[in-house]
Amino acid sequence: MESTSTMIWNRKLIDPSKERMEKPRTRGCTMVMDKGTGLIAFRDTLELAGAYIDFIKLGFGTAVLTPGAVLREKIILCKQHQVNLYPGGTFFEIAVAQNCLHSYFRTLKELQFEWVEISDGTIDLSRQDREKAIREAIEWGFRVITEVGKKTAGSVATIPELLSTYEHDVKAGAIYIIVEGRENGQNIGIYDDRGEVNSRYVMDVLKEVDPDRIIWETPQKHQQIQILQLVGCNANLGNIPVHEILSVESLRRGLRSDTFCFWNR
Amino acid sequence: MESTSTMIWNRKLIDPSKERMEKPRTRGCTMVMDKGTGLIAFRDTLELAGAYIDFIKLGFGTAVLTPGAVLREKIILCKQHQVNLYPGGTFFEIAVAQNCLHSYFRTLKELQFEWVEISDGTIDLSRQDREKAIREAIEWGFRVITEVGKKTAGSVATIPELLSTYEHDVKAGAIYIIVEGRENGQNIGIYDDRGEVNSRYVMDVLKEVDPDRIIWETPQKHQQIQILQLVGCNANLGNIPVHEILSVESLRRGLRSDTFCFWNR
Amino acid sequence: MESTSTMIWNRKLIDPSKERMEKPRTRGCTMVMDKGTGLIAFRDTLELAGAYIDFIKLGFGTAVLTPGAVLREKIILCKQHQVNLYPGGTFFEIAVAQNCLHSYFRTLKELQFEWVEISDGTIDLSRQDREKAIREAIEWGFRVITEVGKKTAGSVATIPELLSTYEHDVKAGAIYIIVEGRENGQNIGIYDDRGEVNSRYVMDVLKEVDPDRIIWETPQKHQQIQILQLVGCNANLGNIPVHEILSVESLRRGLRSDTFCFWNR
Repeated sequence: MESTSTMIWNRKLIDPSKERMEKPRTRGCTMVMDKGTGLIAFRDTLELAGAYIDFIKLGFGTAVLTPGAVLREKIILCKQHQVNLYPGGTFFEIAVAQNCLHSYFRTLKELQFEWVEISDGTIDLSRQDREKAIREAIEWGFRVITEVGKKTAGSVATIPELLSTYEHDVKAGAIYIIVEGRENGQNIGIYDDRGEVNSRYVMDVLKEVDPDRIIWETPQKHQQIQILQLVGCNANLGNIPVHEILSVESLRRGLRSDTFCFWNR
Repeated sequence: MESTSTMIWNRKLIDPSKERMEKPRTRGCTMVMDKGTGLIAFRDTLELAGAYIDFIKLGFGTAVLTPGAVLREKIILCKQHQVNLYPGGTFFEIAVAQNCLHSYFRTLKELQFEWVEISDGTIDLSRQDREKAIREAIEWGFRVITEVGKKTAGSVATIPELLSTYEHDVKAGAIYIIVEGRENGQNIGIYDDRGEVNSRYVMDVLKEVDPDRIIWETPQKHQQIQILQLVGCNANLGNIPVHEILSVESLRRGLRSDTFCFWNR
Repeated sequence: MESTSTMIWNRKLIDPSKERMEKPRTRGCTMVMDKGTGLIAFRDTLELAGAYIDFIKLGFGTAVLTPGAVLREKIILCKQHQVNLYPGGTFFEIAVAQNCLHSYFRTLKELQFEWVEISDGTIDLSRQDREKAIREAIEWGFRVITEVGKKTAGSVATIPELLSTYEHDVKAGAIYIIVEGRENGQNIGIYDDRGEVNSRYVMDVLKEVDPDRIIWETPQKHQQIQILQLVGCNANLGNIPVHEILSVESLRRGLRSDTFCFWNR
C-alpha cells in the first residue's frame, strides 16, 4: 500500500484530467505490443507499469519462437498483474493458412491463454469463415478480439466496410475490434503516408459504433495524441511499444506537454 | 578496481580525444531521459554506464506514475552511483497549473530529491514568477536547473530572449540552463524541421554565456555530433535516450566513426 | 527439453518457410548490434533468443567503455549460448590510428574473444595493410570477419571494387565479409537515401561470390525483408537491433505479415 501514488503525491498531480479510469476497466485500455521481451524485462515492466497495461499482444509469430518456459512464465505473470496476454492475429492467420486451426486453439487453451485475436490482415477469409472462427474460439472458451483492415500498404477499409465487419464481429461475439495501424502506423488504415490520423474517418466511425469496443492501433506518439484528443483520455489504444507505456499514461492524464492543455484547466 | 578499463586496455584506446573529463565533473555532463524504465533495467544501466551519466531526468509525469517503492529505490541507486536524479520540468509546470507548488516541493524534499527543474515550456510564467520559483526551490534546499524555450512546434527563443532569461536565471541561483530540444528534437528551439542544428544560433549563444552552464538537449545522434563538433567533447548533452548512453560516450571520445576524425589525429 | 517449441506447437506453425536452418549454422546467421546493453538485459536476451543469434557485435567503442567485470561476463555468457561475440570494426581502426594494433590483439586474446572484425570504413588502409592485418589476426588465433565499404554518407563501393576486396579478403583468410549498412542504413553502401535496397546491386554481387560468406547489414525492417526476398530465408543479416531479434526470426520463417506470402503456400 505504501507504494501507491496517492500516499506520496498531492492528488491533483496524479490525474489533471480528473477522468482517467483505473483498473479493472472496460474502456481506456492500453494494449502493449511485445516484439520479443526477455522474461526479466517483462516482469520488470509489469512491476513498474502493470497498473497502466490492460492487454499485451505477443507480436506476429513471437509466441512460437519464445522458449516454452519463458512463455509459460509470461502467462502466469500477466494473470498476477491482471493483464490479458494474447498472441497476435498474424499467428491465427498462419494457423488458418497451414490448415491447423484446431491444433492452434488447443495449444492456446493448454497454455491457459484467455484471449485470442481473429484477423485477416494478410490472408483472405470470407465473412462466413471469419464468423465461424470467432464462434469456434468462443466455444473453446476464449474471449475474442478481432481486427479490421488489411496490412497491405495503402489499403483502407471504407467506412461502410468497417461498420459492416464491426457489426458482424460483435454479433458473432467479439468483445473488442481493433482498427489496424500496423507496427509503424504509416500509409495504412486510418493513417496517411506521413502517419497522420484521418480525423474525419475516425469521427465518422465513432458515430456508428460503441466507442468503448474500438481499439485504435497508435504506435506513434502523435497518433496517440490525436486519438486522445478526438476520443478522450479513455480511448482504447493499441500497439503501444513496451518503452512508451508511462508516456502513454502521461498523455492520458495531461502529464505530458502535448496533452497538458486538454486537461490542465 | 579490476573492472576499470585502464587495467584491461591500452590507454590510447580509451580516450582518443585525450580531453574527456571523468566524474565528478561540472562540464561534459550527460543528462539521460528516463521515459519509464523498470527498476531492474534502471540498476542494470547504472552498473553498465554509471560512469558516463551525470543526470537522469524522470521524463514528463513519469515520477507520479512510478510505484512509490520503485521510485524510492531509483533515488537511492542514483545516490550510490553519484548520479543526480530529478523530475522533468513539465511536472513542475503541472504543480503550478494545479496550484500546489508548495506541496510539490515538499514531496520532492521528503523523497530526498536534490535537484529540481524550473521551466515554462507549456505554461505562461512571468519573469517575476519564474525567479520566485527558482528562489523558492533554493530555499527548500534544492539545486536548480532551468529550461529556456517553449514546447510549441516552430517556437524559437530569439538570442536576446535566451540571453536575458539566462542572466536572470543565473542571478536567481540556477546552476544549469537547458536549451529546449524536446524528446525528438525537431522543429523546436535550436533545430529546424529536419532536426538539424542551427550552428550560427549555437555559436552566437556561446559567445555570451558560460558554456559550462548550458545543457543542450540532443536526443538524436546527428545533433549530438553537431554540438560536440561546435562545443567540444565536454559539451553538456541532455535528453539522451537510455539505450544511447555508451554511444554518446563513444562520440565524446572519438570512439565512433562519426567523431573519429575530430579526435584521432 | 520441455522448453523446445516443438513440444508445444504444431510443427507447421514453427516454420512455414520449411527451410530455416537451426544452430549451429554457417548460413542464415543473424548478427546483432549491442550498443550498450546492461549485463542483466544481455543475459535476458540470450535466454529468450539465443537460438536465433549467431554473432553479437559490441558496437563502435563500447567494448572499452564497458566495465571489465561486465565485459568478461558477456564473453562467458556468449560461449554458453554458442554465440560469437566480437568488437566492432571501428575499434580495430582506432587501434590502427593510435598505433597500438599489437596491444589491441593481445588484449582481445587475453579476454578470450575468438572473432575480430577488420575494416577501413573510417581510416585509409592500403590493400596490403588490410591483408597484413587479416593474416596477423589469424596468427593470433582469431577468426576474421571483414567489412567492405566506407562510412561516409553517399559512398558506395562499385561492384568491381567490392568483388576485388572480397577476393583478396577471402584469400587472406577472412570467413565472412560484411557489406556496410551502418547503424541506420541510409545513404550508404547498398542503400539509397531513403534506405531502400538497390536490388540490382545485390543480385550482381551475389552472382560473383559465395552468398553464404556475405553478411548484409540490414538495421531496418524493410531492408531485412528485401534481402530475405532476394537471397532467401537463410541470408546472413547484420546490425540487427537487440529488440528486433524475434522480429527478424519471424520474418525469416514467414511468421510475420511482411514475409507471410513468400513462404506460407
